[in-house]
Amino acid sequence: MPGKLVFVGIPFIKGHGTQNDFVVLPDIDGELELTATKVATLCDRRAGVGADGVLRVVRAAALGEPLPQDVPADAMFMDYRNADGSIAEMCGNGVRVFAAHLADAGLLTPGDFAVGTRAGLRRGTVHPDGLVTVHMGVATVSDKSTATVEGVAYEGLAVDVGNPHLVCPVDVDLAELYLKVPPGHDPAVFPHGVNVEFITELDEYTVRMRVHERGVGETLSCGTGTVAVTAAVLHAAGQTEGVRDVLVPGGQVRVSVSATGCTLTGPAELVARGELDEVWWHGIA
Amino acid sequence: MPGKLVFVGIPFIKGHGTQNDFVVLPDIDGELELTATKVATLCDRRAGVGADGVLRVVRAAALGEPLPQDVPADAMFMDYRNADGSIAEMCGNGVRVFAAHLADAGLLTPGDFAVGTRAGLRRGTVHPDGLVTVHMGVATVSDKSTATVEGVAYEGLAVDVGNPHLVCPVDVDLAELYLKVPPGHDPAVFPHGVNVEFITELDEYTVRMRVHERGVGETLSCGTGTVAVTAAVLHAAGQTEGVRDVLVPGGQVRVSVSATGCTLTGPAELVARGELDEVWWHGIA
Repeated sequence: MPGKLVFVGIPFIKGHGTQNDFVVLPDIDGELELTATKVATLCDRRAGVGADGVLRVVRAAALGEPLPQDVPADAMFMDYRNADGSIAEMCGNGVRVFAAHLADAGLLTPGDFAVGTRAGLRRGTVHPDGLVTVHMGVATVSDKSTATVEGVAYEGLAVDVGNPHLVCPVDVDLAELYLKVPPGHDPAVFPHGVNVEFITELDEYTVRMRVHERGVGETLSCGTGTVAVTAAVLHAAGQTEGVRDVLVPGGQVRVSVSATGCTLTGPAELVARGELDEVWWHGIA
Repeated sequence: MPGKLVFVGIPFIKGHGTQNDFVVLPDIDGELELTATKVATLCDRRAGVGADGVLRVVRAAALGEPLPQDVPADAMFMDYRNADGSIAEMCGNGVRVFAAHLADAGLLTPGDFAVGTRAGLRRGTVHPDGLVTVHMGVATVSDKSTATVEGVAYEGLAVDVGNPHLVCPVDVDLAELYLKVPPGHDPAVFPHGVNVEFITELDEYTVRMRVHERGVGETLSCGTGTVAVTAAVLHAAGQTEGVRDVLVPGGQVRVSVSATGCTLTGPAELVARGELDEVWWHGIA
């Protein structure tokens, strides 16, 4: 045992969902002064704790912002911030980690949950084995389009999951694709850019994917991307509903697609709990 | 306040020295089973806590390895592991963070300290303002040699600080140097490779540097590199002792050089304290 470990700072939890990682800050009554600079420093992977984003846990009534119409004032709200300090609406991997923390901290009854986000109330289930299911809304498959990598055009299907995706089956080895620059896309089809998934179907139950997220680069996981991929694969097989296991570089999730809505089920790992050093935290300009 | 935060896991501290960051694991009695896989997972920046390395705090007698001759059995020992899980000898930035933790945890009297490392006993001082001074041994300036970046040769001075360095003053803007590949060096002078520092003297007290560490790549800080730079700058000015502030990408340190030994003084920031989740920790293969 150590000599003494005195906890006097700001509580935090570090966790990840398929290697999309977050610092969770429990702040039920909304007392934390969470500036963009504090978020960015906290997410700095060397000078701070390090994460892709911050999930502040606050009761909706204490958020200090107008709430989406379907979010009740007493709901737990996921105040999601990007690593650069900017405010964001929703994150499919983040909400799993958020729910896993709520269950771990005794802030929700194990089983079904409903948490507020800036994109509205998100419902889901924390399963006994620790996996978390989140309802992701409807996926709409539309036109064909192409993504271009190193001069090679790959045909794919456009899928809208609240944000735009282009899902491209490839014959080449997925690992060989060069995704350090954004794949080319048709700006007439995707005027605001697009997230591009390259996929290989391994069998009738399983798809492997790599994803390039617009404005971010290649990532180890993209929740809405796994939903888009499953919808596209089913569409290509002439089906409107079904289930697929989707292998992403950061792990594995299961997606269920139907005409009334999709669900994403995946792991949420809580790695560490503790407190931020108060002197360090208050010293951030 | 959160609903409940119950600490039941393995204690840890996250901290950094000029953005060289570490997970400190207090394990005074040497009870922790710290495999290479556990270290690598802990240092993984998305699936774990994330760090450049692990500093296990263990009483020297409980290390379970033969001790260097000058390390007493009751000394606190810095069991340093690289992020890939391999064992390492010493780290100038790490020993500052290690000493800052010892002072913070009440495991040493503020002021002078002596901690065991695989490179022998390291002495230093934790100052009242939180800065930490560490004795770094003797720096030996030897021959001229050249480092090559994008076909341009930069002449520099070879300096030995227990490991080999080549310190090259440059006229170009330091920020413009392309260091994503190792600078070329003369294998006859540096048969085991070399750490290369490129420097600009800002005034008679201050040097700015960038560093490419052999086998690692460009880093935000290199403790022995700052010592080599100061020794080389003094040598070029015809002096054998003196002091310089050295600006590295990750912050600023002060180096004192004399014929009897060098000291490195710099910050050590403790960012967070807490406990690793026991289920997560024991689940690492």
